[in-house]
Amino acid sequence: MKLVPIESHANPLLKKVRSLNQRSKRQRLALFLLEGAKLLNEALDKGVGIEAIIASQSFFKEGLPGTDQSNFDSIFIVEDKLFLELNTTATSCGIVAVARIKPSSIDQVLIDNQTLFVIGDAIQDPGNTGTIIRTAAAFGASAVILTKGSVDPYSPKVVRSAMGALFSIPIIFDLEVNEVISHLAAFKIKLVALEPSAQTVLSQIKQETPIAYAFGNEGHGLSQSLLASADFVVQIPIKSTTESLNVAVCAGIVLFSHAQHVNLGLQKLN
Amino acid sequence: MKLVPIESHANPLLKKVRSLNQRSKRQRLALFLLEGAKLLNEALDKGVGIEAIIASQSFFKEGLPGTDQSNFDSIFIVEDKLFLELNTTATSCGIVAVARIKPSSIDQVLIDNQTLFVIGDAIQDPGNTGTIIRTAAAFGASAVILTKGSVDPYSPKVVRSAMGALFSIPIIFDLEVNEVISHLAAFKIKLVALEPSAQTVLSQIKQETPIAYAFGNEGHGLSQSLLASADFVVQIPIKSTTESLNVAVCAGIVLFSHAQHVNLGLQKLN
Repeated sequence: MKLVPIESHANPLLKKVRSLNQRSKRQRLALFLLEGAKLLNEALDKGVGIEAIIASQSFFKEGLPGTDQSNFDSIFIVEDKLFLELNTTATSCGIVAVARIKPSSIDQVLIDNQTLFVIGDAIQDPGNTGTIIRTAAAFGASAVILTKGSVDPYSPKVVRSAMGALFSIPIIFDLEVNEVISHLAAFKIKLVALEPSAQTVLSQIKQETPIAYAFGNEGHGLSQSLLASADFVVQIPIKSTTESLNVAVCAGIVLFSHAQHVNLGLQKLN
Repeated sequence: MKLVPIESHANPLLKKVRSLNQRSKRQRLALFLLEGAKLLNEALDKGVGIEAIIASQSFFKEGLPGTDQSNFDSIFIVEDKLFLELNTTATSCGIVAVARIKPSSIDQVLIDNQTLFVIGDAIQDPGNTGTIIRTAAAFGASAVILTKGSVDPYSPKVVRSAMGALFSIPIIFDLEVNEVISHLAAFKIKLVALEPSAQTVLSQIKQETPIAYAFGNEGHGLSQSLLASADFVVQIPIKSTTESLNVAVCAGIVLFSHAQHVNLGLQKLN
């Protein structure tokens, strides 16, 4: 493992890391940040392209705890003060990596595998988005599709709450709602829209593949065009009008219910 | 509605509000903070005791948008600068209230209603805790029980992610695990422990009331004593060992599955 010291705030790599807190920069460079040893290990395991690994001096002196250094070709070491200036959401973790975004196209995903899709329509909360990605991966979904207006799936908070699932399921993002609708129709994939005020409850429909489940924005719900194009608009029955379900919890319930009806090849964990 | 201006940082009410960011102060005073018009309205609707309502000058000048002022006896108005110094997590909301914590005792709850309990065992993340409370309320649980070592359910982040559910379901907190176990046993309530490595899957057990479902800490899972005392230790089948479910998603799935087996009187929303 080659050690490369960096001593200046103006170093181009550090400048790049700092810029990756911005969505526009992540998009333009097709790069994102991995924070902490755990995420970095998972990314390396799953074959995510890593452009650079950067550790703080004190994390390096501790022996890079929790990391799998056999996978590191080289590592950049920066003073603690410079590391803090990277201004990541987890500066206390001592290690960050610059990773490559692997683009997924909806056409390719639909050609490869047409089983189970999860659509997030303009979901705003990074925690909800990450949890939906994690849940979709856990239930073996073919892909997660995020419409334009959704939070960036490569923002550090989403990456963190997806807990590595981001590396194991294709994420298609920044798609216009109408593009989503036309692609699903072209491949004859049933569209099920989740909407708290629906007349039909989830258990009343046949959950069979190929299928796509759409979950809407936390405040405003699903786009009108997604609702209008859905084969079924359903709700999950809950106690009364004063309560509601969190969107990621809703996705978990729907995918669990789906798995009860369709053999997804889910295994017991041991 | 009486208007009371406050002009000093040293004002005792503002001091109290600032102190309520600390768990120890919330506990000692049995008070917590409500941030924003929406939460305040819900709290007033549900009969939560409100000790004081404080708005920023500019929020007041805008006409207190989103609030139901017919419910306000008096309101404290503070300069924007002083309002910002309250250092709440939602200073941009323009309005906060000091609300009374209504204590729930496990004995009283068990005497009143012995149907469906949700136990959070040392859950750390405020978002997860709030979402579990919200989900438990949505599925009509009798109470949420949080063991010692859990995040404070009255911390501003939990209050926010519970979305008002905190006011509609009894929350019992700071209970030793052994107290929880002995109370459930005394009332012959079946204890189901959720554990990803369990040999039994959720669908293999009979989900019937009275029942308590226990969900563990995000990193370490359930306490040994809860696992040892459980009538059933179960898992939700997912794709493979590399993935896992978020604890609030897990709670949502379990409660949904419970509702499929037991008539909880859930209604369609319209």
